[in-house]
Amino acid sequence: MFQIHERLREDCHILGRFALCHLLLNRNATLPWLILVPETDATDLLDLPPPVLSEILSEAHAVSHFIKLRLGWPKVNLAAIGNLVPQLHLHLVGRRPGDACWPLSVWGHLSPGPAYQGSALCDWVAMLRTEAGLRVP
Amino acid sequence: MFQIHERLREDCHILGRFALCHLLLNRNATLPWLILVPETDATDLLDLPPPVLSEILSEAHAVSHFIKLRLGWPKVNLAAIGNLVPQLHLHLVGRRPGDACWPLSVWGHLSPGPAYQGSALCDWVAMLRTEAGLRVP
Repeated sequence: MFQIHERLREDCHILGRFALCHLLLNRNATLPWLILVPETDATDLLDLPPPVLSEILSEAHAVSHFIKLRLGWPKVNLAAIGNLVPQLHLHLVGRRPGDACWPLSVWGHLSPGPAYQGSALCDWVAMLRTEAGLRVP
Repeated sequence: MFQIHERLREDCHILGRFALCHLLLNRNATLPWLILVPETDATDLLDLPPPVLSEILSEAHAVSHFIKLRLGWPKVNLAAIGNLVPQLHLHLVGRRPGDACWPLSVWGHLSPGPAYQGSALCDWVAMLRTEAGLRVP
């Protein structure tokens, strides 16, 4: 039975899932930091078979589209790092010039910030369900 | 005529190119930090059409394979950030527990380090030509 890594569960809200990946949201609401966790034992994205990688990127595209068009952040930083949490996960972070971390990347540079309000989370999940096919338990 | 961004040319050796991407190597030899620069005007990886994205990831896979199997680094950190250099580029960084930056990511955390020796560069380029189809001017 696949389990999301404890550290990711501590740091993130679990919003739902797509066909291959669970969708998480970092609890720090300073900027929209979403995380896809594919159900796989592989630890590096580029080690996955091309059809699986292609599906993950299609789900990543839907999340990036949401960050840009719905949340209004012009840029998305994308990364698969996994030095602290070995379970494969893909960061998608909305960015704009002058944001709280600009121009640094968020990894190791983002200060603690406010939590999300429940209503914002509900609105986001509703949009992701309708427009990106997110499945919610 | 496509030109690699000035900042990337300052920071990196240009090793050659694949079908879509130029292959660069950060001059800091502390760890193998390779960079793919696709010939495109798009600035975010996930905005590319799926066939183009697929080709870039195939080239990224070849570079990741080289870092792991030929250079012997067990892990590859992958990222498309572009906050400092808007031209689209994809980082592929060989990592191992206990390396000079571990467990932090290299972006904003890697101290200046030694330069590559000419012979090492030549060996790497020769391997990438033979095994990954790198084209060298």
